[in-house]
Amino acid sequence: VTGTTTGLPTTDHASSTTNEVSPTLNHQPPATIADLTESELISHVTTRLPASPDWMVVGIGDDAAVVEPERNRLEVLSVDALVEGVHFDRRFTPAAAIGHRALAVNLSDLAAMGASPRLALLSLALPGDLPLAEFDSMIGELTAFAARCGVVIAGGNLTRIAGPMVLDVTVVGTVKRRRALTRGGARPGDALYVTGSIGAAAAGLQMLQADHTAASSCVNRYLYPEPRIRMGSLLGRNRAATACMDLSDGLADAVRQIASASGVGATIDAGALPIDPDARDWFGRHGLDAVVESITRGDDYELLIAASPRARGRLAAAVRHGDAPLTRIGSCTADSALSLRLGGSDTPLPRGYSHFR
Amino acid sequence: VTGTTTGLPTTDHASSTTNEVSPTLNHQPPATIADLTESELISHVTTRLPASPDWMVVGIGDDAAVVEPERNRLEVLSVDALVEGVHFDRRFTPAAAIGHRALAVNLSDLAAMGASPRLALLSLALPGDLPLAEFDSMIGELTAFAARCGVVIAGGNLTRIAGPMVLDVTVVGTVKRRRALTRGGARPGDALYVTGSIGAAAAGLQMLQADHTAASSCVNRYLYPEPRIRMGSLLGRNRAATACMDLSDGLADAVRQIASASGVGATIDAGALPIDPDARDWFGRHGLDAVVESITRGDDYELLIAASPRARGRLAAAVRHGDAPLTRIGSCTADSALSLRLGGSDTPLPRGYSHFR
Repeated sequence: VTGTTTGLPTTDHASSTTNEVSPTLNHQPPATIADLTESELISHVTTRLPASPDWMVVGIGDDAAVVEPERNRLEVLSVDALVEGVHFDRRFTPAAAIGHRALAVNLSDLAAMGASPRLALLSLALPGDLPLAEFDSMIGELTAFAARCGVVIAGGNLTRIAGPMVLDVTVVGTVKRRRALTRGGARPGDALYVTGSIGAAAAGLQMLQADHTAASSCVNRYLYPEPRIRMGSLLGRNRAATACMDLSDGLADAVRQIASASGVGATIDAGALPIDPDARDWFGRHGLDAVVESITRGDDYELLIAASPRARGRLAAAVRHGDAPLTRIGSCTADSALSLRLGGSDTPLPRGYSHFR
Repeated sequence: VTGTTTGLPTTDHASSTTNEVSPTLNHQPPATIADLTESELISHVTTRLPASPDWMVVGIGDDAAVVEPERNRLEVLSVDALVEGVHFDRRFTPAAAIGHRALAVNLSDLAAMGASPRLALLSLALPGDLPLAEFDSMIGELTAFAARCGVVIAGGNLTRIAGPMVLDVTVVGTVKRRRALTRGGARPGDALYVTGSIGAAAAGLQMLQADHTAASSCVNRYLYPEPRIRMGSLLGRNRAATACMDLSDGLADAVRQIASASGVGATIDAGALPIDPDARDWFGRHGLDAVVESITRGDDYELLIAASPRARGRLAAAVRHGDAPLTRIGSCTADSALSLRLGGSDTPLPRGYSHFR
């Protein structure tokens, strides 16, 4: 979908009356995206993009993108949406963080499949009163993050919405044949590992909800999650994992999904969980159970991994070359029970929460 | 993103008071999608899908889809969104038509590239009060249309929105090397053709705006557009066209885009335009200029094609095996002017309209 360009009419909405006496005389209101045509806005995106790679046969500006597939690789595709008011609150989520997260949640899905990202398509539905500065900031961070991750923006769509802003991102990556990591390959006796640390994003969100200007490492983890792209692709490549999933809906949910897809049970050792120290401190000071908060809240874009005990060497190699530590947090069992081991006794694993209902 | 299933709580919202005396006693309100969990809603989609093809290595239900690319073909990717209140009005657009159009607008983009569709990813942001029956109707038509076009639903995303519904569809197709049709290949002297007829969708929309229950062939063209998939892929395959674009934003806009991308001008013969007879009649009865309405309004998912005079035989072959007639409506010129020839005199080609501003 395209629009027609008729110059830069950013002053169309500015008052040109000369009998204005208020202190705002000659101060034009800040430009909003409604002051620009669709093609002007698109050029705010395209001018930020690096040169197209050779494999991009037709890029942005035609009805569709045309790309040369990568030889001897399978393709991995995922789509995810961020909806204002559901996945982020504009009162305390800077535009740059919105742009970052829209891509991060998708790259995390590719990482969970052991895939390397290749390209992304953006579909943005934006309210007309969005300040142009916020649009630029959102797009600036999104395109910079994409470039840093080697992701080519191959196309997109821009439309108005009379309501919450929606950012839909589709990512395409590749993985070698028989190297894709699914949720369904875990077996009884496999160990369960998690990358990095958990709980920080949930604590960061609570800090922002309490104080919209809060700043801390937890806030940063919530606003600018770093998907485990390198770790995912290493684990896929060296066949270290039997199953993998990202923690977008929380660790408890991920354990449940892998167990269900693999037909196994699981026991998680609460004492082994790599809970972020600052998050643990925050939860403690607010009378919250750090374990429950850290495993039932979403927004940690870490990976949950199942691996055979025989794969310890390959896991260690992935950690050596990867971008995150791995912590063993439990194991898969032959029955179907999901337990949390806490101080020597087992309780049922808490449920995550459903976004929809 | 996944949710947890806890049975079918469709009666959660029904009153269970026993001192109710109104005639609605025991009548439960119709189910809305908020009565179901995300995974229950997803199963309303997946149960409608045919068996996955061999090339689908990992389908719906994991972090991402994994597919085997098609040998010796380029990939063509496009994303497009339908936003309630911008692209459709729920007061007169049945849920089935919304589902149909969400896929059709994307397939039309692939057709315009000469590509054959292969798979689609759906990302739906839906208000919680959407009746479940409308959700089912929307998904039912979308999946049936996909199956009819040989498009595999490879994955998706479902989320709430506190506002207008948004349907984002990403489609992936394939095309042979050096057979992709772009906007940029037209040369002076090329003839311009359009598939099918124009104006019907614009007239159909006006009919529905005047009477929400209107029914006619124009209304049908607006609600259930048929993208020119077969024609596009034939034109790509036999190298009949030098440039191609779909008419989503109207014929005038498509002429402008092809001319601009190709560095040519164009003259359109108003008398030659294949304006739908019922649409012409409607415009006439409402004092509207049938030519202007038919070329400046969007929603016709026909193709505009530029072709060298030497390609007449190949064009005729495409028409013989294709799904639409072709009408010659003008030609490309060496200067950059865009003209509408009307009764022997040339006027500037009217502009289409920009969706955004």
